[in-house]
Amino acid sequence: MLTAADGPAVAFEGVELTYAEMWDRCRRLVGGLRALGVERGDRVAVVAQNSHRYLELYQSVPGAGIVLVPLNHRHAGPELRYALADSGARVLFADRDIGDLPDCVEHVVDAADGHEALLAAAEPADFPQDVAEDDLAGLFYTGGTTGAAKGVMLRHRSLVANAMHLQAVWPFDPETRFLLVAPMFHLAGTLAVLATVWHGARQVVMRAFDPAGLLDLVERERVTATQVVPSMLAAISEEQLARARDVSSLRFLTFGGAPSATETLRRAHRAFADAELMTMYGATETAPLVTAVRHVERRLDTPQARSCGQPLVGVEARIVDPDDRTPVARGEVGEVAVRGPNVMLGYWDKPDQTAAALVDGWYHTGDLGRLDDQGYLYLVDRAKDMIVSGGENVYSTEVEDVLYRHPAVLEAAVFGVPDERWGEAVHAVVVPRAAVAENDLIAHCRESIAGYKVPKRIEIRDEPLPKSGAGKLLKRELRAPYWEGRESMVSGA
Amino acid sequence: MLTAADGPAVAFEGVELTYAEMWDRCRRLVGGLRALGVERGDRVAVVAQNSHRYLELYQSVPGAGIVLVPLNHRHAGPELRYALADSGARVLFADRDIGDLPDCVEHVVDAADGHEALLAAAEPADFPQDVAEDDLAGLFYTGGTTGAAKGVMLRHRSLVANAMHLQAVWPFDPETRFLLVAPMFHLAGTLAVLATVWHGARQVVMRAFDPAGLLDLVERERVTATQVVPSMLAAISEEQLARARDVSSLRFLTFGGAPSATETLRRAHRAFADAELMTMYGATETAPLVTAVRHVERRLDTPQARSCGQPLVGVEARIVDPDDRTPVARGEVGEVAVRGPNVMLGYWDKPDQTAAALVDGWYHTGDLGRLDDQGYLYLVDRAKDMIVSGGENVYSTEVEDVLYRHPAVLEAAVFGVPDERWGEAVHAVVVPRAAVAENDLIAHCRESIAGYKVPKRIEIRDEPLPKSGAGKLLKRELRAPYWEGRESMVSGA
Repeated sequence: MLTAADGPAVAFEGVELTYAEMWDRCRRLVGGLRALGVERGDRVAVVAQNSHRYLELYQSVPGAGIVLVPLNHRHAGPELRYALADSGARVLFADRDIGDLPDCVEHVVDAADGHEALLAAAEPADFPQDVAEDDLAGLFYTGGTTGAAKGVMLRHRSLVANAMHLQAVWPFDPETRFLLVAPMFHLAGTLAVLATVWHGARQVVMRAFDPAGLLDLVERERVTATQVVPSMLAAISEEQLARARDVSSLRFLTFGGAPSATETLRRAHRAFADAELMTMYGATETAPLVTAVRHVERRLDTPQARSCGQPLVGVEARIVDPDDRTPVARGEVGEVAVRGPNVMLGYWDKPDQTAAALVDGWYHTGDLGRLDDQGYLYLVDRAKDMIVSGGENVYSTEVEDVLYRHPAVLEAAVFGVPDERWGEAVHAVVVPRAAVAENDLIAHCRESIAGYKVPKRIEIRDEPLPKSGAGKLLKRELRAPYWEGRESMVSGA
Repeated sequence: MLTAADGPAVAFEGVELTYAEMWDRCRRLVGGLRALGVERGDRVAVVAQNSHRYLELYQSVPGAGIVLVPLNHRHAGPELRYALADSGARVLFADRDIGDLPDCVEHVVDAADGHEALLAAAEPADFPQDVAEDDLAGLFYTGGTTGAAKGVMLRHRSLVANAMHLQAVWPFDPETRFLLVAPMFHLAGTLAVLATVWHGARQVVMRAFDPAGLLDLVERERVTATQVVPSMLAAISEEQLARARDVSSLRFLTFGGAPSATETLRRAHRAFADAELMTMYGATETAPLVTAVRHVERRLDTPQARSCGQPLVGVEARIVDPDDRTPVARGEVGEVAVRGPNVMLGYWDKPDQTAAALVDGWYHTGDLGRLDDQGYLYLVDRAKDMIVSGGENVYSTEVEDVLYRHPAVLEAAVFGVPDERWGEAVHAVVVPRAAVAENDLIAHCRESIAGYKVPKRIEIRDEPLPKSGAGKLLKRELRAPYWEGRESMVSGA
């Protein structure tokens, strides 16, 4: 929808831009990228915290027919360098040092001052009119169980479809003031960007999450809607219950990732009594939304409160046999598969992994779940052996691979354990071949993977790890004692 | 979205069906059609007033990969027979006699008893899983300036896109109770069907419009939303102001076609004070929505109240030179062109007319208008010389063609004149070659075109009609005296 040019588009740390100003900056950014020699289909990567400049990149780069590659700024150098090389990024916008860059990266632009200098020197350029819905809009890197991240190829149509699906459950209008606080390198962060802009509404951007700062912004900017990850939900609820702000403007509070514990939801409802609470479930490969639970605050005493919800309008979800991928009977547990215009084109330069995940238009999530007779999805386990910690996905095999690289490690198993703050904490059990201290192993991990993937605790054991008759590690046996008597974050059954 | 099977799906004249019951009937309908020999891609036509059975056809026929052909039940026999033959319909559901049918029609099913008998005899059949978004969903006949109706080919994606675009400005949820009262053979009638079903909400179906009956239904069924044509809007407003019902449940009152006079809008706001008023503009070729004005009731003192509104999210509209079809400068008048996933595939079996209307994905509406600097569209005239009377489009040349077929008619000009009830009334000026009475000419028209197309008045004149130097009829000169000192229904300037 066309918007009033004088209307406020974005607010970030004292910077306020109207739509006219923002689009002028976006057109300059396109001009600046062209001056750097960037052509249609090239990749432009970003390693940065949230800002209005990130929003400009998010809008200008795909809009100009260029491919955006948002990378996790918490990732360690090796992880970032892998993704930069894999994507063949020619330009990198960064707010931190990443070390020696792969040869493909021809230009590094400082994400703040460099961005401004690029705009100041550039002529505004028109957006091309022939960017097509099937053109690649972005590569969104997601951790793989092999330790090598995969670039999820999303076309324009998938991002647009996701925004359309979102609007069917979450009303936007020109009075919407959306607080963008989840990291923008995740699709959960940029979830509402398109819908907010389409309605000529306002984005309030927060550089990085902190509970008190978020509540202050809600109060000061009269924020009407925001999207957080479960660990943020718990933190802002506690802060609001301890030191109440005027959060009466907040009408929609959504959270993604794994369903939250019922007690967390109760406290969130107490803290944000005027807001509709909405759980959302999705994956990078589905751009990202698959299901949602509307009005969680009205369902606190029902199982639905801890489900992932019903498939969004426009998205199909079904449960299939993980082996032959045929549908199972309603109510049975199987692998969650998703179909719709939101589903990715595939993994960049990884035809085998694409073929394994995408079959007849269905994306196979690797999550195990069941659908009830009202179509609510309940996750029961993650086939991918993934830990969700503070809203970030951690693949246990990636962490195990790093541990095995330490000369003192004979056996290693990594899994999630309940954690008040993070939802799940990354936990490791190691059987050493030589004497080694927990701290040494943690330091070893920190060298090659992001901080949030590093185990919070590493137990050193003398006994061999439990295995099946076929020699397969029985990780569930290791994990079970930690979850006994507690609700598993992924057990909605 | 999957819906609670026990939830109410539809209410019609005492019949109440849950979603489980409705889908069972829909599956039986698919089974019944297959038993009649109907195959994928075949055409099934409907000539009927609104009912829950029409809703079942609307959902089952395209869902089964069959092509629905909804025809205007007010059309005269020759018009209906033309469309049946043109579409090659194999089956016709009808609630009235149409006379000798073309050979292609193998089965005629009575739209009430016959429909029930078909369901009773049929086995429920599953909907096929491979109906694709580019498959043809329906042929929607629209009157053409040549007098021959054209079948607008809409694929599934266009109908789904339209429903997605609608949801971005008009919130639906499971509590929505939509009153379906505009005729279902128009896209304006079925505008909200998909969104209502997706949300598991309720449809209240009204056989045919009458103002008192509509208000009684709103009160009794606690209707939350409805869509009417401008002549209905005026009539229900007057009825409500004269004999108030409890219409406090009504939150959305939308109306399409030409913008309404400001006084009509003021009275509508007075009558339905709790409702958001929304003007919508569209065309059959765009499935149908192009633009909308939200919250008309807040804009009564602004020009926007009489605009067509801003393009919906997902739809592009631009103004082009009617000759070379290049964009004109912002603010200039030109032909309205529309692009988006909602745009038709083309006209059935009419490649020349398709090529004339569709250029590079843009549908050229034939309407003349301009966009203001906020992107609001104002229609200033209709290039197609179309009259909008009671929500129906009347092409003046079609009516002129009929008049010219009368032996006493030497010259004929047909145009719209202001009318309190119909918005515009069809008006004719005839220069006779032999003595003829107005009533005879009206009776002549009634034989071959629908009642709403027949001129309400035919003036007999002795003077030749005014013409340009090139001999072109100057219809505007004839029309001007009727509009003097009044707001033209299409002049938002």
